Amino acid sequence: MQPIFDQVTDDLGILYGGDYNPEQWDPAVWREDARLMREAGVNLVTVGVFSWARYEPEPGVRDFAWMDEVLDLLHAHGIAVDLATPTASPPPWLGVDHPDTLPVDRDGVRLVPGSRNQFSPSSRVYRAAALAITRDLAARYATHPAVRMWHVGNEYGQVDHGEEAAREFRRWLRERYGTVDGLNAAWGTTFWSQRYRSFDDVLPPRRTPYLVNPTQSLDFRRFTSDELLACYREQRDAIRAAGVTVPVTTNFMGFFALADYWAWAGEVDVVADDQYPDLADPRSPADSALVQDLMRGLGDGAPWMLMEQAAGATSWREHNLPRTPERLRLDSLQAVARGADGVCFFQWRASTVGAERFHSAMLPHAGVDTRVHRGVQRLGADLARLRPVAGTRVPARTALLFDWESWWAAEEPGRVTERLRTLDQVRAFYRPLWDRGVAVDVVRPGASLDAYDLVVVPQTYVLDDAAEAALRKAAARGAGVVVGPMTGVADGNAHVVPGRFPARVADLAGASGEEWVALPDAGVAVAAEPGPWAELPGGGRATVHGELLRADDATVLATFAEGYLAGLPAVTRRDPEGPGGSVWYVGTVLDEPLLGAVLADALARCAIEPAVPGAVAAGGVEAVVRGDAVFLLNRSDTARTVAVPGRWTDLLTGRDVADAVTLPAHDAAVLTPAKSS
Amino acid sequence: MQPIFDQVTDDLGILYGGDYNPEQWDPAVWREDARLMREAGVNLVTVGVFSWARYEPEPGVRDFAWMDEVLDLLHAHGIAVDLATPTASPPPWLGVDHPDTLPVDRDGVRLVPGSRNQFSPSSRVYRAAALAITRDLAARYATHPAVRMWHVGNEYGQVDHGEEAAREFRRWLRERYGTVDGLNAAWGTTFWSQRYRSFDDVLPPRRTPYLVNPTQSLDFRRFTSDELLACYREQRDAIRAAGVTVPVTTNFMGFFALADYWAWAGEVDVVADDQYPDLADPRSPADSALVQDLMRGLGDGAPWMLMEQAAGATSWREHNLPRTPERLRLDSLQAVARGADGVCFFQWRASTVGAERFHSAMLPHAGVDTRVHRGVQRLGADLARLRPVAGTRVPARTALLFDWESWWAAEEPGRVTERLRTLDQVRAFYRPLWDRGVAVDVVRPGASLDAYDLVVVPQTYVLDDAAEAALRKAAARGAGVVVGPMTGVADGNAHVVPGRFPARVADLAGASGEEWVALPDAGVAVAAEPGPWAELPGGGRATVHGELLRADDATVLATFAEGYLAGLPAVTRRDPEGPGGSVWYVGTVLDEPLLGAVLADALARCAIEPAVPGAVAAGGVEAVVRGDAVFLLNRSDTARTVAVPGRWTDLLTGRDVADAVTLPAHDAAVLTPAKSS
Amino acid sequence: MQPIFDQVTDDLGILYGGDYNPEQWDPAVWREDARLMREAGVNLVTVGVFSWARYEPEPGVRDFAWMDEVLDLLHAHGIAVDLATPTASPPPWLGVDHPDTLPVDRDGVRLVPGSRNQFSPSSRVYRAAALAITRDLAARYATHPAVRMWHVGNEYGQVDHGEEAAREFRRWLRERYGTVDGLNAAWGTTFWSQRYRSFDDVLPPRRTPYLVNPTQSLDFRRFTSDELLACYREQRDAIRAAGVTVPVTTNFMGFFALADYWAWAGEVDVVADDQYPDLADPRSPADSALVQDLMRGLGDGAPWMLMEQAAGATSWREHNLPRTPERLRLDSLQAVARGADGVCFFQWRASTVGAERFHSAMLPHAGVDTRVHRGVQRLGADLARLRPVAGTRVPARTALLFDWESWWAAEEPGRVTERLRTLDQVRAFYRPLWDRGVAVDVVRPGASLDAYDLVVVPQTYVLDDAAEAALRKAAARGAGVVVGPMTGVADGNAHVVPGRFPARVADLAGASGEEWVALPDAGVAVAAEPGPWAELPGGGRATVHGELLRADDATVLATFAEGYLAGLPAVTRRDPEGPGGSVWYVGTVLDEPLLGAVLADALARCAIEPAVPGAVAAGGVEAVVRGDAVFLLNRSDTARTVAVPGRWTDLLTGRDVADAVTLPAHDAAVLTPAKSS
Repeated sequence: MQPIFDQVTDDLGILYGGDYNPEQWDPAVWREDARLMREAGVNLVTVGVFSWARYEPEPGVRDFAWMDEVLDLLHAHGIAVDLATPTASPPPWLGVDHPDTLPVDRDGVRLVPGSRNQFSPSSRVYRAAALAITRDLAARYATHPAVRMWHVGNEYGQVDHGEEAAREFRRWLRERYGTVDGLNAAWGTTFWSQRYRSFDDVLPPRRTPYLVNPTQSLDFRRFTSDELLACYREQRDAIRAAGVTVPVTTNFMGFFALADYWAWAGEVDVVADDQYPDLADPRSPADSALVQDLMRGLGDGAPWMLMEQAAGATSWREHNLPRTPERLRLDSLQAVARGADGVCFFQWRASTVGAERFHSAMLPHAGVDTRVHRGVQRLGADLARLRPVAGTRVPARTALLFDWESWWAAEEPGRVTERLRTLDQVRAFYRPLWDRGVAVDVVRPGASLDAYDLVVVPQTYVLDDAAEAALRKAAARGAGVVVGPMTGVADGNAHVVPGRFPARVADLAGASGEEWVALPDAGVAVAAEPGPWAELPGGGRATVHGELLRADDATVLATFAEGYLAGLPAVTRRDPEGPGGSVWYVGTVLDEPLLGAVLADALARCAIEPAVPGAVAAGGVEAVVRGDAVFLLNRSDTARTVAVPGRWTDLLTGRDVADAVTLPAHDAAVLTPAKSS
Repeated sequence: MQPIFDQVTDDLGILYGGDYNPEQWDPAVWREDARLMREAGVNLVTVGVFSWARYEPEPGVRDFAWMDEVLDLLHAHGIAVDLATPTASPPPWLGVDHPDTLPVDRDGVRLVPGSRNQFSPSSRVYRAAALAITRDLAARYATHPAVRMWHVGNEYGQVDHGEEAAREFRRWLRERYGTVDGLNAAWGTTFWSQRYRSFDDVLPPRRTPYLVNPTQSLDFRRFTSDELLACYREQRDAIRAAGVTVPVTTNFMGFFALADYWAWAGEVDVVADDQYPDLADPRSPADSALVQDLMRGLGDGAPWMLMEQAAGATSWREHNLPRTPERLRLDSLQAVARGADGVCFFQWRASTVGAERFHSAMLPHAGVDTRVHRGVQRLGADLARLRPVAGTRVPARTALLFDWESWWAAEEPGRVTERLRTLDQVRAFYRPLWDRGVAVDVVRPGASLDAYDLVVVPQTYVLDDAAEAALRKAAARGAGVVVGPMTGVADGNAHVVPGRFPARVADLAGASGEEWVALPDAGVAVAAEPGPWAELPGGGRATVHGELLRADDATVLATFAEGYLAGLPAVTRRDPEGPGGSVWYVGTVLDEPLLGAVLADALARCAIEPAVPGAVAAGGVEAVVRGDAVFLLNRSDTARTVAVPGRWTDLLTGRDVADAVTLPAHDAAVLTPAKSS
Repeated sequence: MQPIFDQVTDDLGILYGGDYNPEQWDPAVWREDARLMREAGVNLVTVGVFSWARYEPEPGVRDFAWMDEVLDLLHAHGIAVDLATPTASPPPWLGVDHPDTLPVDRDGVRLVPGSRNQFSPSSRVYRAAALAITRDLAARYATHPAVRMWHVGNEYGQVDHGEEAAREFRRWLRERYGTVDGLNAAWGTTFWSQRYRSFDDVLPPRRTPYLVNPTQSLDFRRFTSDELLACYREQRDAIRAAGVTVPVTTNFMGFFALADYWAWAGEVDVVADDQYPDLADPRSPADSALVQDLMRGLGDGAPWMLMEQAAGATSWREHNLPRTPERLRLDSLQAVARGADGVCFFQWRASTVGAERFHSAMLPHAGVDTRVHRGVQRLGADLARLRPVAGTRVPARTALLFDWESWWAAEEPGRVTERLRTLDQVRAFYRPLWDRGVAVDVVRPGASLDAYDLVVVPQTYVLDDAAEAALRKAAARGAGVVVGPMTGVADGNAHVVPGRFPARVADLAGASGEEWVALPDAGVAVAAEPGPWAELPGGGRATVHGELLRADDATVLATFAEGYLAGLPAVTRRDPEGPGGSVWYVGTVLDEPLLGAVLADALARCAIEPAVPGAVAAGGVEAVVRGDAVFLLNRSDTARTVAVPGRWTDLLTGRDVADAVTLPAHDAAVLTPAKSS
């Protein structure tokens, strides 16, 4: 059977639209909106995300009539609806009548209504109220023809440290550990006299005199993600129970710290993500690509949706740079290239009230005759032409490992240096691959690596049995493995694994270490050894973090040239004599050229080419292959010509192309093999 | 009838003195103080500001005898008294016995005694206790001959977020909106599901999960200002009810964020202000001038009082630079020049105890033979010579608009850039006028502009009907209008007015915009058009904020030369073909020279000259005309000669001057037309 | 009778070892540990610091059997034990069952278990529980032969602002002041209407609207130190009551802000200190020397113990640089040179769990074949050779005054500049002495100065009668006195002493001031007068703070060359005509060369030589004389030769040395006079 999300895009093509909040506008505006949506190529809008207080103005009351009208109007204009449960933002009365529904922060302060998201995911009263409104909504609209998708909650990310959370945290811990001795062992409560007498004595992390137990903190993060997921699941189940057969999902937020999306991904019918690149960061295109590859990875390669982005500037940063229409178009095509079958926005019409009155929208305050809206209209037309791409897949031979638990555990305080950040490392190892035009899948440690010829492990701090086994299997099979610093340091309880590190895979690396070392602020020089590189780098620098390493059974590729680690290996490579792939170990934070050379060496030895040879991001053109389409995105300020042997048709323009295509500055092409004439 | 404050200065001349806190000293010291005050030229001291705990050592007890002695002593020495109600700082027992009198901050923390100001302005118990001591004080001293002025509270600025405030905030909202639907409409509670069921559900802004509703926040600021004003008013009324006929006032704090002094000014008999310029800021003389022009504006041109300044350094900044006696003298004469009929200090004698033990005073710890005290004595003598100036007015043909509600609304979070600050803009537009020696009145938007030939609107974010009408009337009459960025963006509920901005006056500007744009950190180049300027500027730079503008019916004076706005107008001027003044629109934050050129253009076209042609602050001499006196303040490090055609007498020296006067470095002259010989 | 600590070192030699936390490990590991300790030269370990939850898993239960086994095992291996009371970190159940034992911070937030130290020192329930476990522990192990020392609590530094503390603070105030009038006078409650009706109204400092009363804050600091000391004392008394005769102590933390170690030092049988120099700070060797001289001073010259240091990197800084074995060795020998008879670590074996899993240890995660552990073994061997040094004293002719009360009072907010910091000043005045190889004793103001020829007073803000008298006596006797800025400003209640400052000793200085002055950020030039210096400095700069001074009866050594103080004295020296020593007054923060020249002048006039002439830290070799041993520590990167006239034996190598010794880079020698052959 075809996946249910593919059924939607089969019908509608690439989804295009945004959040639409009709409760903010008069019905007269609804009609104008429906017309303008059509003109802009919109085919799907998300409605009702923040409608709880409108649906239920007083406890138990229901007012759905206005939504009937909205859905009928949209349907009449041929615009499909992603109908939201309104549970992300309860009405003020819920918190007033039931203060226990309000979250309590780490300082013990109970948060109040007046913003949004003021609920504890552990609150029984909140959960019941959210479920009740969801059931009624589902019952009413389960079969409405406009509704082609359901959207549960919004950007799940609430944390409660209060008594509601304490009760559920204890339940969760009982389920995880069985006995309090199990908890004591896992948390290492022998340290600092923290042994618990009973589960009843355990608290969420709150304000403490000094550093909190790192495993307590890790478990509270796991619990919080699980608790939020439980909120999602019970609403999704209620929607299904009402007979809904279309996809149900919620919107992720990329590398968001509070939810382990590997655990969540199996519960959504389509992975959906909100993406707001930092336009002040020149590396944001590479970082966006990484997030998009993650989204594709979460869905095991299936198409996903860009659920929210900004048509222009955001308004929640301290200083929000504008987004040019050209940049919006390139970024949107990038998402489609990397597997998105939907490109949506927050939001359709710019609000004139509330905290996001300055957030850009598809339809600005100044109306249709604006730079932003013209860009939105053009993008709608572009996406309509990409219908053939929907449902296809992105091939990749390189895997990059990432998981939330390692990230969480790696950044608990009390470290050699707090400046070593997992996401920085993940981005640092990804960027050279992006620069070189290499297709990458983001994979969960422990998942099968059978499809890959190169496995990159920027920082998997916690390396469990399954992850170790998968790495060993890949290497044994001949795949290359690149391992970054502070990998394999801890077990699943965040206990340091004693012995020379990376304790579980030191034999695989052929190198091992005894001491993690914070590097001086200025960094230290690193000398590349002249012989073994595929691409000989010059000297370089290491910063932040180094490791006191020994090459046990590996070639030294680069050496620290000064300081505490002077003369010791900084990068090694083990080339097994028998079968098996090479393993690189990078025991420091290298500068971009040197880390690039390490990855170039790995790509060369694993015979991995750019997706489109000759078109690489480092040269100005980001190139991605999806299905039989070749996406070429010129991110430079000048025209670029790309060699594309053969005969193609550019889906965006309908023009035929042979052997080469010239892209104006900031322009794009989506080539598919020309139909034989 | 003569205003009652003028009656005081008629009697006493320019008021000179400071806060005097006799409870800190033995009676023997009182006698020394009275003598030294006389020797320093002091004619007015403010007593009793922090005397509540001394008057009422236990609830209901009264001890006024010591104050009888103080007042009699001062009176015997010919020193008048500004008698304070002691209600700014309740005794510790009030908070202990009645915790509900203590303010609760945004985090829910109840503030405690041990500092000062620990009261909620909404607390019924505090209000009753403050009124009781005020009544008794007024009854006792209503007719004391020393008492020539009353001083209610001190630096009103308390905020409470607790239950006392919640109750009164709800009352205030009921009065403002009548129905909860009115509140919901005004607050835009359709956004983020914030609709209120009832006024009873509303809370003051407290800690929330994310950004608070901007109109809720704005209304809480309005409420807080009103609540503080109610505290002031009920004490003032009690004083009047006791038969007091002398002026009653309280001390303002310049551009203070927590009180809307436009609303307050009508309630005081003389505007009084505390001024502590930042001596580390080289532009502080201009900024002080702006504050002084504001104070004069608050009183509609009437004389005001400098109620507090520091004789030397303050002690509440992280690093408090010293004030030279020359600087103190120039700044004090500046205040008189700009309308002050009183120059007072915090405080007379330096405290040896308490949190302000290192705040400078008129009489330092080291006594009379000190640089600071010699400066105080000299200033006292100077001011005595300025008696003829008292009661006179400062003429100005340029108005600068400023109001608190716009400021508050403009800086609610969730903006294109938080770096655009209203006060920065107000100062930026004022400084070129100051540099050029132009007299400026600070005017409330909506007030009559009939007296002005040029109206400068740095940032009036909220532009209501009255403000729009006044601007239109002024322009129609032929006055020039200079409009700065982010003006006229929102209505009185802080809702964005849809359409091309500045939505209500775009026709007047002849230019309109569609998008607010945060500029890159380095700023962007701006090119001045060669033709239309009165004073052709070179190129310049814009930073922070820009606007995507179109010149509908205006001349483009300057253009963005690069970036997102390249080629688009940065500054425009509409010169109506028929009657009516020119209107400048500045759609960005210009550097000082370029903004100076815009204002120079406006001054030239409006034919506005410096108050004293040839003596301008940019040339080192700040010149101000008050009544028939010409104040010349040499703020440079070298002697300056100023042409002053005619024959004059320098009030400070008694010397005659003809046609020109030479001022030594850091020296001043106050010229009045010489009496015919 | 020999001091009881000397009895321990008589038996064991220099103590060497660290914290050992056996509850974190299996008994099998205990056995390996005991063996490895012996191999590393360990002769003393501190056990049980964090064992409370293990001893008392539920209220009232006791489990000591495991500790019996540990102590017997260690004893069998010849390793002595410093047995800790486990009271620094109560089990979680104590806080759960008795929330009143948990400390409340300044914001009113009650801190929770999950870290360590979660107790209020004022809690009656905590105190009783801590005493009960201490008594049982003492009863069981009073006579255990392994136990050669007792260690009470750990790093005392808890603060409570809650109701438990409020009650005891009131008691403490009643004891201090007798009457509430006494308190009101001491606290200067006439300022800001703070007069208290009764002791019952007084609160600890909590969140207030503005600056808190400085004497209230000072008294709360005094109270907190006293309260912590009371915790220590009652446990110590319980240990003694059980018949323990070996030394009892606790571990200090150098210049730690929360405990007045002058008051504590008399209560410990040996001063013990935790030292974690900041390895990123190039001046840390001098700063460590200062701390060590303080520790020796606290014990009135007696040997002390380095109770904790790190074998490698710490983990509680944001970025923790590594410690080379050479640096560890030099720093450890430095401690012995400056009077330590013990060199211990936190901790023996690196934890794999808990918040300090990345703190280095004597035995790293990677085991014995590591750079760190080899360094630990070498140091153990070195210290064993230094046995002859144990018990000897360090002679010094220079005293440097420091006290906690002055430090506390000097840094209460509301100052001319918060950038003037007492510890910065103490370090600044100490470093030139260290650079010049001069032995220094740190002395409490008011203590006898009879032994010294030079007294350095960097900043004794509070100068009481005793301190004044001691200074006068020293000067009268002919000792030189160097006085730094903001000395003698306040009395014991932190009231400013009126008059020209330094009010109590201005006659001694022959100079006096009238105004404290914050200097501009760039500082100001200071010109040295050409005549009177022993060592003529070039010009220099002053920053942060200056003083408006007058030389009443003193020679001006240096003058401010610009700014507010231009032409006025910056440094003076009074050379009495009759008997009596010279007095230098430094009225600003001088740069290092200029302050060095002032101190060089003082050293020259007082005829004070380096401890080892020709070996000074400024030249790369830190030299210290202890007893008849000469410690030479080459802290430079190259070999250095030091002249040491005579014949010596190097205790570290056993080699004989005559007249000169050459030290390789980062190496050391400890010379004792050669035995006659």
